[in-house]
Amino acid sequence: MKYVIGLDYGSDSARAVVVDAESGKELASSVKYYPRWTEGKYCVPTANQYRQHPQDYIDVLEYTVKDALSKCPAGTAENVVGMAFDTTGSTPVFTDKEGTPLSMLPEFAENPNAMFVLWKDHTAIQEAQEINDLCAKWDIDYSSYEGGIYSSEWFWAKALHVLRSDEKVRSAAYSIVEHCDWLPGLLVGKTKPEDICRSRCASGHKAMWLEKWGGLPSEEFLTALDPLLAGYRDRLYTNTCPSNQKTGTLTAEWAQRLGLTTNVAVAVGAFDCHMGAVGAEVKPGALVRVIGTSTCDIMVSSYEEMGDKLIPGICGQVDGSVIPGLVGLEAGQSAFGDVYAWFKRVVAWPIEQSDLIDAETKKKIIDGIIPALEKEAAKVPVSESTILATDWMNGRRTPDANQAVKGTITGLNLGSSAPLIFRALVEATAYGSKAIVDRFIENGVEIKEIIGIGGIALKSSFVMQTLADVLNMPIKVAKAEQACAFGASMFAAVAAGVYAKVEDAQSAMGMGFAKEYYPNAENHKMYQALYEKYCKLGAFTEKEF
Amino acid sequence: MKYVIGLDYGSDSARAVVVDAESGKELASSVKYYPRWTEGKYCVPTANQYRQHPQDYIDVLEYTVKDALSKCPAGTAENVVGMAFDTTGSTPVFTDKEGTPLSMLPEFAENPNAMFVLWKDHTAIQEAQEINDLCAKWDIDYSSYEGGIYSSEWFWAKALHVLRSDEKVRSAAYSIVEHCDWLPGLLVGKTKPEDICRSRCASGHKAMWLEKWGGLPSEEFLTALDPLLAGYRDRLYTNTCPSNQKTGTLTAEWAQRLGLTTNVAVAVGAFDCHMGAVGAEVKPGALVRVIGTSTCDIMVSSYEEMGDKLIPGICGQVDGSVIPGLVGLEAGQSAFGDVYAWFKRVVAWPIEQSDLIDAETKKKIIDGIIPALEKEAAKVPVSESTILATDWMNGRRTPDANQAVKGTITGLNLGSSAPLIFRALVEATAYGSKAIVDRFIENGVEIKEIIGIGGIALKSSFVMQTLADVLNMPIKVAKAEQACAFGASMFAAVAAGVYAKVEDAQSAMGMGFAKEYYPNAENHKMYQALYEKYCKLGAFTEKEF
Repeated sequence: MKYVIGLDYGSDSARAVVVDAESGKELASSVKYYPRWTEGKYCVPTANQYRQHPQDYIDVLEYTVKDALSKCPAGTAENVVGMAFDTTGSTPVFTDKEGTPLSMLPEFAENPNAMFVLWKDHTAIQEAQEINDLCAKWDIDYSSYEGGIYSSEWFWAKALHVLRSDEKVRSAAYSIVEHCDWLPGLLVGKTKPEDICRSRCASGHKAMWLEKWGGLPSEEFLTALDPLLAGYRDRLYTNTCPSNQKTGTLTAEWAQRLGLTTNVAVAVGAFDCHMGAVGAEVKPGALVRVIGTSTCDIMVSSYEEMGDKLIPGICGQVDGSVIPGLVGLEAGQSAFGDVYAWFKRVVAWPIEQSDLIDAETKKKIIDGIIPALEKEAAKVPVSESTILATDWMNGRRTPDANQAVKGTITGLNLGSSAPLIFRALVEATAYGSKAIVDRFIENGVEIKEIIGIGGIALKSSFVMQTLADVLNMPIKVAKAEQACAFGASMFAAVAAGVYAKVEDAQSAMGMGFAKEYYPNAENHKMYQALYEKYCKLGAFTEKEF
Repeated sequence: MKYVIGLDYGSDSARAVVVDAESGKELASSVKYYPRWTEGKYCVPTANQYRQHPQDYIDVLEYTVKDALSKCPAGTAENVVGMAFDTTGSTPVFTDKEGTPLSMLPEFAENPNAMFVLWKDHTAIQEAQEINDLCAKWDIDYSSYEGGIYSSEWFWAKALHVLRSDEKVRSAAYSIVEHCDWLPGLLVGKTKPEDICRSRCASGHKAMWLEKWGGLPSEEFLTALDPLLAGYRDRLYTNTCPSNQKTGTLTAEWAQRLGLTTNVAVAVGAFDCHMGAVGAEVKPGALVRVIGTSTCDIMVSSYEEMGDKLIPGICGQVDGSVIPGLVGLEAGQSAFGDVYAWFKRVVAWPIEQSDLIDAETKKKIIDGIIPALEKEAAKVPVSESTILATDWMNGRRTPDANQAVKGTITGLNLGSSAPLIFRALVEATAYGSKAIVDRFIENGVEIKEIIGIGGIALKSSFVMQTLADVLNMPIKVAKAEQACAFGASMFAAVAAGVYAKVEDAQSAMGMGFAKEYYPNAENHKMYQALYEKYCKLGAFTEKEF
């Protein structure tokens, strides 16, 4: 028997799944929330500053792997042959010469600038703008394979912002590593910046790496952007690897800490949605949407379909970023479930503040808010949807990245109740989805089916039905509850040599689909009119505010 | 000793104050909420339908008068010489030939169309539009003394809407009476439509009555609007009276029911804010704002200042509507405190829904929401006010009535907390106030001081300071806690002959001011820029949605 472990690092928690590498059967899983993050540490939500401490990642790694293994039959751990990590991204951190994230050093232990800058951190809006301005003037437009608009959520903008903001970090920093590259490197003992296998996915989608350009943007470009970046290109990387490759095997120390053997192959890391798309059986013609706090939308396209095409306003098109031999296309909404969670926080405020309710009751009420809002909102016919919102509470990733845009709710009157507003927010997230789907189609990328994965896809039939109605497309929901971790387990199996190709792992291990939502034509017609208003409202607020 | 009783009928409750007619000293007061209204009966908030049952008005009348008198020294009741009523408006009801509101008849007892149509009911948007269209074509623009835009909140729009909506009411209806005319008529036994003294204030500001036109709009105009209105003009009135006049004295029955004598003079009724402005010592150059669920903004202007001027987009300019011998000017925001109360309801939703909290605790938490939000919102500097809202959750009364406009909140991000949104809503209500003040000033009506009355003026220093900063004007807060009822007591004293003129009653009885707010110049500068954005946001949403 051969087993593999898929590890998925989300925004708030990480999970490990132990999977039978041959059948794809899940033996056990374990989830743990990042402890420091859960306390709200190192974050300034009003400033969109979101940082994560590397120790959070290590704590949950040890816990989830050991906890999941403890639920498996005896002898499982000894037969684990591969591991793979997916993480959020771009989530980079500055390291010293040894490759140690600066916040792992005592003097930087509490400095948010020495921590991983989480994907949704938008402190680097100014830097992203400068990158875009420079790309527009440069002889090579380095942003062109990343949708033509570089985002504040991405690698170089964040790196430059931290360098400018923090002299101490600047002085101590030597190189930079993405979350998805750091963990595999750590586990196989390739921790030095020059030794780490860099993810094709992370580098191609977020760091403007392209093979035909010789890798990262030129030193001239980077120093023209800011002399503070001088030298980083050489201290980063030239080559990158797809995640079918193994980066090494577990060190003795990590094998011991995790209760595994040193035979375990560790795959090159990638972003969560990319591995999730594989887990959900992505193939040409299918748009896989990981629907959680945000969405990540993944397609793979053949070289024939893509040709020399550059799709504007998406999060990139990278050869081999999802499946080797196909061009991976990424898009996504900066907030999806986060829009609902924001509204939950707003309406939970009186409960949070009250000293008349005990903590346990508070938690119960607050945990019940979104299900209760959904239940009420679902009763309202589309014809009575008179509140209109945009979904830009966390900026807009695609189409046409602009992290400075804000969310809007209009059409409010004194009868606008919490469920009616919630309904408008759900519709807004569906309109944001439509904007992405339309962009692909307009650029000649065929979409035959939509596959939903992630918590919201599995849990909320109201949200998924609204999405199907707005998109006027059927939506399949992948059966895998932990699709990203499950996809990671497929990569683990390929990296360990159980399968020759990612597609083979998909065929053998794939779980199929749990449910399919079909669009209601009448609702779609009404939504089409509302979508046009959404576009107008968005265009106005983007221009004026 | 001579005492007077001022009665103020607000949106949710009525209050009676017993006042010494010579010193102006308040002896006692009593407040009661409308019982049926409090249960939410006859209203459809999502459709902006707000109706009040006449029995609610009678119930609270008996209770508050007797309750207030019971708190006064023995012998007070016998020495009451006058009463005056102010009410919300336009709040009309259809009556039969006897002047009985139809909902007082058994067959209409539960029919909302047979009840008073509360000022804030916006079911007649279509009818208001038709009135405006017809005014624009007619040789006399009957709307010109009412700001040039007839509102769905007003008499004829509401009357026509009810006639069109309800065949049974249409068949039974003979005439129409305003709330402020019905109560005095009832108490003095002048209940028949032809006997009721009609308020100058209500008729001039809301029913397009003008002396030089011979009263109400012509029969030709009304039947051109809709043949359903045929005959109503003749069954309504030609003459109207300012509220310094008495309509009669208490009938034996009502004297007995209220514990008073038949010597009590009852003044002609008027709207709450008009009497409130008198209670707050309105005079030329002072803008009195009754700040409660909505605002009503009242000025008096001399014939010299006014000349032939017609001020566009206000709620009318009526000779003698506030003080005989001066032109009364009215404006106002359709929602002010109602905007805050709406947001309170939104964030209270999880509490309301919960079965984990008992009713008493729920009430305590919900009652504490607005004070808690204010406390937190007040801590935020203006420079961090990045959420922008419009205050049109109940449409817009002035400037330029448009009840179809809706409220908007923009600039939202994931850090937009309930207090930050609340702050934006407070600022929005202040911007709505500025739009009104600017309209008066642009039309050459001098504003030397602003006087605030009503619950919010007295209770919320955060709201008042924001208002002063946005307007860049000092604001005095009248000492009278029940300024409208207190103003009514001044009219009662004049109607009873204690004073020859309203101004004399003001001098003798006036209470002065409790507090003054001074604008912060730096905040005003920032608010000036935000106000321009408010205007842009408003113009866009008004045009597009």
